[in-house]
Amino acid sequence: MHSPSELLQKIEQAINNIQYPPHPASLYEPISYIMSLGGKRIRPTMLLMSVDLFKGSIERAIPAALAIETFHNFTLIHDDIMDNAPLRRGKQTVHEKWGDNTAILSGDVMMVEANKHLTKVDVTILKPALDTFNATAQGVCEGQQLDMEFESRNDVSIDEYINMIRLKTAVLVGGAMKLGAIVSKAGDDEAELIYQFGENLGIAFQLQDDILDVYGDPEKFGKQVGGDIISDKKTFLRLKLQELANTNDLNRLNAQRLEDKADKINNVTSLYDQYKVKEHATLIMKEYLEKAFMALELIDVPEEQKKELILLANQLMNRES
Amino acid sequence: MHSPSELLQKIEQAINNIQYPPHPASLYEPISYIMSLGGKRIRPTMLLMSVDLFKGSIERAIPAALAIETFHNFTLIHDDIMDNAPLRRGKQTVHEKWGDNTAILSGDVMMVEANKHLTKVDVTILKPALDTFNATAQGVCEGQQLDMEFESRNDVSIDEYINMIRLKTAVLVGGAMKLGAIVSKAGDDEAELIYQFGENLGIAFQLQDDILDVYGDPEKFGKQVGGDIISDKKTFLRLKLQELANTNDLNRLNAQRLEDKADKINNVTSLYDQYKVKEHATLIMKEYLEKAFMALELIDVPEEQKKELILLANQLMNRES
Repeated sequence: MHSPSELLQKIEQAINNIQYPPHPASLYEPISYIMSLGGKRIRPTMLLMSVDLFKGSIERAIPAALAIETFHNFTLIHDDIMDNAPLRRGKQTVHEKWGDNTAILSGDVMMVEANKHLTKVDVTILKPALDTFNATAQGVCEGQQLDMEFESRNDVSIDEYINMIRLKTAVLVGGAMKLGAIVSKAGDDEAELIYQFGENLGIAFQLQDDILDVYGDPEKFGKQVGGDIISDKKTFLRLKLQELANTNDLNRLNAQRLEDKADKINNVTSLYDQYKVKEHATLIMKEYLEKAFMALELIDVPEEQKKELILLANQLMNRES
Repeated sequence: MHSPSELLQKIEQAINNIQYPPHPASLYEPISYIMSLGGKRIRPTMLLMSVDLFKGSIERAIPAALAIETFHNFTLIHDDIMDNAPLRRGKQTVHEKWGDNTAILSGDVMMVEANKHLTKVDVTILKPALDTFNATAQGVCEGQQLDMEFESRNDVSIDEYINMIRLKTAVLVGGAMKLGAIVSKAGDDEAELIYQFGENLGIAFQLQDDILDVYGDPEKFGKQVGGDIISDKKTFLRLKLQELANTNDLNRLNAQRLEDKADKINNVTSLYDQYKVKEHATLIMKEYLEKAFMALELIDVPEEQKKELILLANQLMNRES
């Protein structure tokens, strides 16, 4: 068993050891750049924790972990183009630095790199590994498409929202952990259960993100508190408020102007408080966390091997940033 | 043995049978759209001809053929964004019809679809099939990057140009045929030789494209004759002229203005004639065709099985559009 920080170290080392082709430099530089921007490496860490859970070989799981992290960073490059985002982890986004065309193409070749990493797993489990990876990648693309569509829709239901964050965020956590099970040659039922753990944890994680964006401690949150309110993002909180608020309050909500940022944050937050939207969100978040732990409980390995995962899940859920 | 048109029919049928998920419709509609625009389906046809060459099962090679055609169409969607192209096969391009963001994302999910097709090949040859597919995909991305870079460079050599078209166009023909060999369980040497056939044929094919763009019969060519001249595209002809022309003629060449399209085409073509650039291009094209046939000759199967490939290669080389 390894602690998450031990696993993170192995991941960082493996990322450092990746050799991209030297030419064309303009195609591969953006890949090294985004891969070196860091981040929490949650997905490959969860993958390796799943390997530990099933007593697999961390060493032999590294290609799968690199596939997942490379795929994730590829989606960041393309998402940042679509979202017109200038910054990623405090640094210039790839399309800002190199232009949209290079960002599209470097992203494409990263997808190939991700597949190349995955192809290095033990050949006896290559097919199920690929099936899981492809299903995961497809889900993530679908989630991003739904997220973009929701921006221009005013009738998004909470169920649709949960399905969107499931696809955009949670499927990749679940898929990573399932890959961990597959490379450890766990049984199909076990692989499915750890997928359920990861997916439900991923949904809970994203719901908590929605909460922190409004109620996070500005000293600790890292991003601007209220960012989702300013951009009118249809988060769980916002959709729940729209569901609960009376006509007067809804009109007040829709009358918020972009120019008065601080006012807008205050006003919307006080509406959230009034309708106890945070409590609703926390309740649903805990339901998904509960589902995650129920799946983990059903996995037939000694409790000792689940310890680190339970610890990490609780840490993620009590985080402040 | 099947004729190319019999194989084409099988490919069209398989494409018609693909079922994309119904949701999100906006993600999958562009995929059905571009896949149904047609085209010559040269790459999957060559793949299946390679299967026939090695007496493999056409039926079991269909997933590989679909992977190659899906990947090719994915590159068309992304290339058209990068090139700002309004039309593809006489119809609106995907990004014109649905916007850049959907075009990026539909392309991404097509890459996943291509991988899903490929994963359906016989599991005993899955790894070499993936290795070939990934190397091919990577080469195509590198070729597109070089093509974009060449637009703003004035010192592109003919060797660099040949390498660019090799990556952008020929590697995919070679990779398709190598996949055909792999799914037919041909030996490594055989797979490498048919790759060489395909790659060299692909280079010859592109060189002939460069020639047809200037010297094609306007009645038969399909595209505007002189399109490359109008856009100052650095084709083999143009680079060869720059290599051969004296200072006076080079100045004349560079003084051509975009506004006088017909004049520009006439003037540049007469420079091409003066320096016998068409003859130079034809010579090099024939060299690559020769290399292709030499590789084919070395493949140890009865001559009878090579008949259709030789016929098709000669047809491609004597085409007028």
